[in-house]
Amino acid sequence: MPEFFNVLPPDEALAKLFEHLTSTPQPETIHVADGLDRVTTESIRASVSIPSFPRSTMDGYAVNARDTFGASQTLPTYLSLIGEVPMGAAPNFDLKPTQAALVHTGGMIPKGADAVVMIEVTQRIRENEIEVLKAVAPNENVLQIGDDIGEGGEVVSAGHILRAQDLGGLAALGITQIKVARKPRIALLATGDEVVAPESEISLGQIRDVNSYSVAGQIVRAGGVPVRCGIAPDQFDQLKSKAAQALSDADALVLSAGSSVSARDMTADVIHQLGKPGILVHGVAVKPGKPTILAVANGKPVIGLPGNPVSAMVCAELFVVPTIYRLLGCKTPPTNRSVNLRVTHNIASQAGRVDYVPARIIQRDGEDWVEPIFGKSNQIFTLIFADGMIIIGRDSNGMQSGEVAEVRLF
Amino acid sequence: MPEFFNVLPPDEALAKLFEHLTSTPQPETIHVADGLDRVTTESIRASVSIPSFPRSTMDGYAVNARDTFGASQTLPTYLSLIGEVPMGAAPNFDLKPTQAALVHTGGMIPKGADAVVMIEVTQRIRENEIEVLKAVAPNENVLQIGDDIGEGGEVVSAGHILRAQDLGGLAALGITQIKVARKPRIALLATGDEVVAPESEISLGQIRDVNSYSVAGQIVRAGGVPVRCGIAPDQFDQLKSKAAQALSDADALVLSAGSSVSARDMTADVIHQLGKPGILVHGVAVKPGKPTILAVANGKPVIGLPGNPVSAMVCAELFVVPTIYRLLGCKTPPTNRSVNLRVTHNIASQAGRVDYVPARIIQRDGEDWVEPIFGKSNQIFTLIFADGMIIIGRDSNGMQSGEVAEVRLF
Repeated sequence: MPEFFNVLPPDEALAKLFEHLTSTPQPETIHVADGLDRVTTESIRASVSIPSFPRSTMDGYAVNARDTFGASQTLPTYLSLIGEVPMGAAPNFDLKPTQAALVHTGGMIPKGADAVVMIEVTQRIRENEIEVLKAVAPNENVLQIGDDIGEGGEVVSAGHILRAQDLGGLAALGITQIKVARKPRIALLATGDEVVAPESEISLGQIRDVNSYSVAGQIVRAGGVPVRCGIAPDQFDQLKSKAAQALSDADALVLSAGSSVSARDMTADVIHQLGKPGILVHGVAVKPGKPTILAVANGKPVIGLPGNPVSAMVCAELFVVPTIYRLLGCKTPPTNRSVNLRVTHNIASQAGRVDYVPARIIQRDGEDWVEPIFGKSNQIFTLIFADGMIIIGRDSNGMQSGEVAEVRLF
Repeated sequence: MPEFFNVLPPDEALAKLFEHLTSTPQPETIHVADGLDRVTTESIRASVSIPSFPRSTMDGYAVNARDTFGASQTLPTYLSLIGEVPMGAAPNFDLKPTQAALVHTGGMIPKGADAVVMIEVTQRIRENEIEVLKAVAPNENVLQIGDDIGEGGEVVSAGHILRAQDLGGLAALGITQIKVARKPRIALLATGDEVVAPESEISLGQIRDVNSYSVAGQIVRAGGVPVRCGIAPDQFDQLKSKAAQALSDADALVLSAGSSVSARDMTADVIHQLGKPGILVHGVAVKPGKPTILAVANGKPVIGLPGNPVSAMVCAELFVVPTIYRLLGCKTPPTNRSVNLRVTHNIASQAGRVDYVPARIIQRDGEDWVEPIFGKSNQIFTLIFADGMIIIGRDSNGMQSGEVAEVRLF
């Protein structure tokens, strides 16, 4: 239908918003132990080499490799055992030709040695002498200085989401204080005369606030801090003052608009008056979620989500989540897993818009299929009973039962 | 090689540990706003129906559907407009035949009405009269009581990891206090005379503690609380007393053993003495990670990881992470995403064990390939430079370049 041709596709809408977001992430310093899933604001390089000394990778004897050349079961080499390398300290001796020293996995290779013979291919024949039953090559079973990372090597780049192993690598280097992007505070303001807080008893005609909880979950997952600012009535001055207050205390504002056209129009007017340049996108070619508003008010993003809970979550995923990654300076935001499965039912759609249909994965003859959960966009439970969303692209007029669909998993 | 045939495959090892874990998750009550990623300890059902009143899904007029039958552009039906349904309250009128009332999206359907005519197919012809240009069927554009969820319907089952939409659904029902599994406290004790805290300057022969940070990250990701208990020297009594203390304050203990055989043997002796039944599994058919120990001490799991950082992370993923989900009572633990890609190099392996090889994804002629990062299991940076791990199954003797491998992404 023509209605979707005069609004922007979601990727173009997001690009338009991002054009006006020029702020850089604000760094804060944290301990590496608290670093999981935080986003670095600068490249971190190794200040030292690891290992910082040559280390044995085996339990065995440190030797000069050349002393073992030709050694075999039938013709062993004999070396004099001059000591044991203590764990956690440098040996207090150097190795001379035809000498060997006991060394444990992770122990330091003494000066003069260049390889380790595994204990399994040796025999202790007396107090201070060993038989070597197999030759080793130079460097065998030895980790050299810098073999793990060399001094100056980049550990992680700026804009990287820290993983468990990154924390370990930083600890290995003695880097315990790291700079990461401060978590953006995302103000959440619900609107609508019919909306009451979840704690409230409801009267006929009222519903409880869903979006301040579901969208908050999406914000947390993306690395933001949701700041619930309550519920504003469908009254221009009150909504405007609440919205301005919410935005001034946060890095971004997400409004979920009232569901009626007049309430939505009022929300749009309020958003446009919050600051310059105001509304950049009004309406996106997405179902559900067409009435989404993207705006920037004095450098801060303001996103007006549709009030219906399903639309709100779809559009939060499309616009709020990427905006948080943008505020964090994250270079490669993670994406949800997708699978391609046959659909169990025909699904109607219209060219010109992207459709998101809640769906569950079912088994049919031992194969995974995806079953659409048809419902209205105000039925939050369609998402609760779903495993993901079928995505029907802009060029499609719908899907036939048995066709393969892309399913974005939750 | 025979060495891997006298140790258990990872799944059997884990099953043996789980046989001895009989405790049930301890519930705590939290606010729904804090519920993301927490695991429910009981089934939660709807105490009311949603919606709790018939609601309009459109902006339009509430009508008796039968009054509109036959209405068309050329032959409109005329209805008398008796009022407007306020948002957030019940209308103070009932509808009689041939009457209509203005209703907004989300507004309550007045008694006597059974459908909503979209505003777009109507015309207001005078103050109190409208023209209806298209018929509606009974129930059209109306969400009935319980259409989202009916009273008594299950919202989430016990052992469910709460997602963003679940929080919204609970809020919709007015369920703000929920019972979730208390996060298990996982004590982490590093051992080894050569290991020092990351804050310390290191001398020759020393290395900084990696595992207490990398494995801690894995614990957080799985929903546990890591409790770092420091570093114990390779000294039996000190290690035993530190381990016993750590376990008594936690729900589980994870030790990362010293890297030498003698240090590992000592760790095994300590673990076995912590409580009954003691060690259940000593050695698993995994590379890296063969020396892993699984034990239960008086009902609490104790896991001895190999000291090398790569082995420690591989085995934490195989044993610590599933144990945390078990302690949480999580019914379907999430799994990491896998992809199947061609390998760029031959990879040696041995039948009888599962191999995990750090690997990065690269582009070759516009296609994704996976490139193994060869290194020793004490090179934590092999994991930092990796995108995931190639998994080579028990029955395989290795992979040829160009063969398709399973890659478990981080």
